[in-house]
Amino acid sequence: MIERVLILGTGLLGASTGLALRAAGYEGSILGWDKDPNQSRDALSIKAIDAVAARPLEAAEASQLILLATPVYAILDWMEQLSPILGPSHLVTDVGSTKALITRAGNRLFNKPGRGGFLPGHPMAGKEVSGALEADAELFRGAVWIFTSEPDTASPDDNQPAMSFQAAELAASWRHRIESFGCRTLDLDANRHDELVAWVSHLPQFLSTALTALLQTQLGDAPELAAVGGRALREMTRLGSSPYSMWRDVAYTNTEQVATAIHALEQRLAHLRENLRTPELRDEFELASRFRKG
Amino acid sequence: MIERVLILGTGLLGASTGLALRAAGYEGSILGWDKDPNQSRDALSIKAIDAVAARPLEAAEASQLILLATPVYAILDWMEQLSPILGPSHLVTDVGSTKALITRAGNRLFNKPGRGGFLPGHPMAGKEVSGALEADAELFRGAVWIFTSEPDTASPDDNQPAMSFQAAELAASWRHRIESFGCRTLDLDANRHDELVAWVSHLPQFLSTALTALLQTQLGDAPELAAVGGRALREMTRLGSSPYSMWRDVAYTNTEQVATAIHALEQRLAHLRENLRTPELRDEFELASRFRKG
Repeated sequence: MIERVLILGTGLLGASTGLALRAAGYEGSILGWDKDPNQSRDALSIKAIDAVAARPLEAAEASQLILLATPVYAILDWMEQLSPILGPSHLVTDVGSTKALITRAGNRLFNKPGRGGFLPGHPMAGKEVSGALEADAELFRGAVWIFTSEPDTASPDDNQPAMSFQAAELAASWRHRIESFGCRTLDLDANRHDELVAWVSHLPQFLSTALTALLQTQLGDAPELAAVGGRALREMTRLGSSPYSMWRDVAYTNTEQVATAIHALEQRLAHLRENLRTPELRDEFELASRFRKG
Repeated sequence: MIERVLILGTGLLGASTGLALRAAGYEGSILGWDKDPNQSRDALSIKAIDAVAARPLEAAEASQLILLATPVYAILDWMEQLSPILGPSHLVTDVGSTKALITRAGNRLFNKPGRGGFLPGHPMAGKEVSGALEADAELFRGAVWIFTSEPDTASPDDNQPAMSFQAAELAASWRHRIESFGCRTLDLDANRHDELVAWVSHLPQFLSTALTALLQTQLGDAPELAAVGGRALREMTRLGSSPYSMWRDVAYTNTEQVATAIHALEQRLAHLRENLRTPELRDEFELASRFRKG
């Protein structure tokens, strides 16, 4: 079904998607474009794309599936640019980290008679390092690739009927491609997505940033430091290297839910600190040990 | 030099030390004892020890090197019991997580004319799971194994001369054994050790406990949760399974420094939360990205 893919944003996620498509047997064309020419050249060099698109909007018109793989605000910009030039035989999808704004824009700008289709997506996979040269065909294996529906609608299918028949077929085909990467797909209300990822993705990231910045302030000049930290320290500070450009957009587009989660953690830390010598400490360890054990 | 080793506490660290000794070519005997008979039986079954000691104090008298591999307070208890029955041809060492109390007790109870030697040690390695069946001969590879000296003495060697000649030879031999595990050894003042590990080991642990307990409270009954979290969530919550028995002793014996570190993190999180939409967020990401890059 899908024979011509365009990836706008050929960094880590965009280039990994190109590699995963190829690894899973996709035989159509993959064009790519990035605002940083080094990124598209790197994506080409690792064969994540077949060619660099000279003019991204013209390449989009000539493609069936357009994958937006940039930070959230750049995705919203692309949606504005692509909406007027695409039609019912096009499907646009994305990998943006927050979904309420993007899903609403998708239903405003696409998914109407005569327009292209828009399928909001978010693979729960990534790395603390960015760029096409970090791309990995296996990045998505075992991960969940979420698709979201208009916030606060009664059914996840409420926004589907507005998509053209061709776009809906492309969307079904794209879901099968995703599953061929070794992913499980999951449909969520966009607001529920943003609330959930505030806890399970954004909170861990901002926490790691705060911890790592604190340790840099406290110990950056202590020569014995680098030697002493073990696996626990490496893991807890790994996300300290995550790219600001991506997380700035997360902070701006999910501010309230992220702030709620961070504030709850501050209170939890204070509670633990005040109970380092009381039986409450045991309760916290017991509660923590139950997480994901059901 | 070392031909008879006794491991008191054959859980994860004790049994891993036994396995590492064997893997590095140690050919002498290794006896073991644990207050939980299942642990010593498990250690025997994986060949981390040659035999279970029936009477640990008698076994200590018959050994040259006694490794205390239990939580901190149990180490202090063993030191009290062993001090009167050991002599200049014995060396006691440990793997306890905090070192100021243990190092002071070592110089009070050992390291005097006619007494056994005591070498306070702390391998910066571990797992979130406990028990002999989790033991691994490679657990210490690439890690730093710290030895500590009496707090606030001018030189790290100040407390060495009090050790008997035989105990000092055993200590030198033990250091070589440790290095044969693939470890780097490091000597630190015991107070400096406890301050440093409050930041690089204890803070990450208590932070992960607080985060994991919070997520269990918030999301423990959300069926989509287990599916959605990616590698970042797994890493940040891995230590949520750490054993309370060990960390209770850390919290009790390094309370002030741990509380200082947790409080500093609370403030850092509040700062980040208040700046989710300001350029300060960029500064935090930049500071974090410098950690361990020098």
